Amino acid sequence: MSTAAFRDLLGTDLPIIQAPMAGAQGSDMAIAVSNAGGLGSQPCALLSPEAMRSELERMQAGTTRPYNVNFFAHRQPVFDAAKEEAWRGLLRRYYMELGLEEPAVRREGEREPFGAAQLEVLSLFRPRVVSFHFGLPEPALLEGVRALGAKVLSSATTVEEAMWLEQQGVDGIIAQGLEAGGHRGHFLSHDLTVQMGTFALLPQIVNAVRVPVIAAGGIVNAQGVKAALDLGAVAVQSGTAYLLCPESRISPNHRQVLTGPEARHTALTTLFTGRPARSILNRMMRDLGPLPPSVPEFPLAGNAVAPLRAEGARLGSGDFSPLWAGQNASACRSVSAAEVTLALAAGAVLD
Amino acid sequence: MSTAAFRDLLGTDLPIIQAPMAGAQGSDMAIAVSNAGGLGSQPCALLSPEAMRSELERMQAGTTRPYNVNFFAHRQPVFDAAKEEAWRGLLRRYYMELGLEEPAVRREGEREPFGAAQLEVLSLFRPRVVSFHFGLPEPALLEGVRALGAKVLSSATTVEEAMWLEQQGVDGIIAQGLEAGGHRGHFLSHDLTVQMGTFALLPQIVNAVRVPVIAAGGIVNAQGVKAALDLGAVAVQSGTAYLLCPESRISPNHRQVLTGPEARHTALTTLFTGRPARSILNRMMRDLGPLPPSVPEFPLAGNAVAPLRAEGARLGSGDFSPLWAGQNASACRSVSAAEVTLALAAGAVLD
Repeated sequence: MSTAAFRDLLGTDLPIIQAPMAGAQGSDMAIAVSNAGGLGSQPCALLSPEAMRSELERMQAGTTRPYNVNFFAHRQPVFDAAKEEAWRGLLRRYYMELGLEEPAVRREGEREPFGAAQLEVLSLFRPRVVSFHFGLPEPALLEGVRALGAKVLSSATTVEEAMWLEQQGVDGIIAQGLEAGGHRGHFLSHDLTVQMGTFALLPQIVNAVRVPVIAAGGIVNAQGVKAALDLGAVAVQSGTAYLLCPESRISPNHRQVLTGPEARHTALTTLFTGRPARSILNRMMRDLGPLPPSVPEFPLAGNAVAPLRAEGARLGSGDFSPLWAGQNASACRSVSAAEVTLALAAGAVLD
Repeated sequence: MSTAAFRDLLGTDLPIIQAPMAGAQGSDMAIAVSNAGGLGSQPCALLSPEAMRSELERMQAGTTRPYNVNFFAHRQPVFDAAKEEAWRGLLRRYYMELGLEEPAVRREGEREPFGAAQLEVLSLFRPRVVSFHFGLPEPALLEGVRALGAKVLSSATTVEEAMWLEQQGVDGIIAQGLEAGGHRGHFLSHDLTVQMGTFALLPQIVNAVRVPVIAAGGIVNAQGVKAALDLGAVAVQSGTAYLLCPESRISPNHRQVLTGPEARHTALTTLFTGRPARSILNRMMRDLGPLPPSVPEFPLAGNAVAPLRAEGARLGSGDFSPLWAGQNASACRSVSAAEVTLALAAGAVLD
């Protein structure tokens, strides 16, 4: 596959996708990346349809270049009262410590999967690329996205997931290696031992499918981009490299931790949402262990943690908030998202 | 650092080290690799000093090229009767199933760390390279190895381990990414969450130390070698790629599993030796979980498993034997070790 295969897929000058990072960035980062020649991504997992519309209006005003709109494609969980109670049992010490009331129990989570309301908003904007995490939405919804003319991408964390996505007709597959920050995209198996490092996952997916493959996980600079293209990727999706940009919305505490040696110790944790996601170790992860058995299903776990996160943030503490990052934060720089994009792209020799 | 930096270190024509695989290969594979221009490795972790001498005599007769002799550098464990009893409790069902007597309790393990006896044998052969796993031997012993004129390598699984090894004066560091098959080399921390994929680990170690860095973990073909050199390695250590060679001594069952889709599901397990090592999932790993809490310290766990392994092997079953492999066995081919070496080296553009 030619190294220019990314152009047909993404419509960009550069084989760089800025990874959608819900909660950590919005349209200003995506606009900057798209205007620099990469593919900026607007994450919608934490947005109401109204907020999504307002961010996409900003995108449309800010760039004429292609961009990506990203959604979570999980199924709504069934509320489990016993799990919720066990979970609150783990967190009660923190409510007491911070002098907070225990929040009311809610049966829905904060993160909405892609649905009819999102499709309706999307139809007003017709983005070049729509990417999904945690599989794909129901066939009728997916058909609706295709009918808008969007190229569809989704993440695979195993060879089996890549083959399944290809069968569903995606236009490209993001091979998400175990090094990646934030949520693992797995959807066929929840057994974490099947998850592979980028070096092993990427070439096996490239061999298993015919659609173009985008590499993600641990790729933070030009050398990494070059290596990923050597392993058969047509483009790279990079998130951690953008975390210190002025366009990033992470907390001052998150920024500070990213620049120190603590950033070398990340782990997959279910504590913040119920799904395994990679975060730099913080107090809650150390206290409770990153993967305790009694965590409610995604995204319900987040409800009982929300007041702790809010109060922690108010106090300038990272004790109760996820510090999402991949396994290599060493290349993070406080420069513009445009500069990060061009620096990454320097690793690609384009036809 | 020039791509030819490996020549000063290894003395070879090609930047390829055949990974030492105790139990899976001996001098015939090492000789074939060294004669092909790579660095063949003789693993000594499972050899008595007498057996080691006999293998090294074969090495000396078989090649005039540089080779590597590899040792484990663990400290002898303290026997823990309670842990041993809990461990046997887990295994008793298998002794019954196979009609075996429960083996007598032994307070020593099968794997000997590098010691004075090994140094004495080594002094008869003066190999170009000596590599260690699980850290380094005591300073006096290490000095003895240096005095023979050998270049010393050891594995690092974190940036901290790489910096520690450099302080001890090693000549090169093997950055062992999480994708690698067999035993993890970690020695400063036993927390598995600090272990990183090759894509994240390699460039961070390259940045942290001045000595040459060798990449290991998930590198199985020319594209992988090229990618690893892009990320700053001067050479590559590859093991899984050699497992189907005629020079490999793995069981027929292990060979067969390596060629099927089961090989895509590996996990780190302590079941076979007490230390985490990557194996393809087998029955014992599925039954007991790959990392149960009650496993005796390395290498003592292996004693109670030994009769199960022996009987399983006799029956042609992989149920009770480790099926060591990295996370990418897809490139394994039943061709000579010389051919594998040359195929890997095709990924390196040499000065």
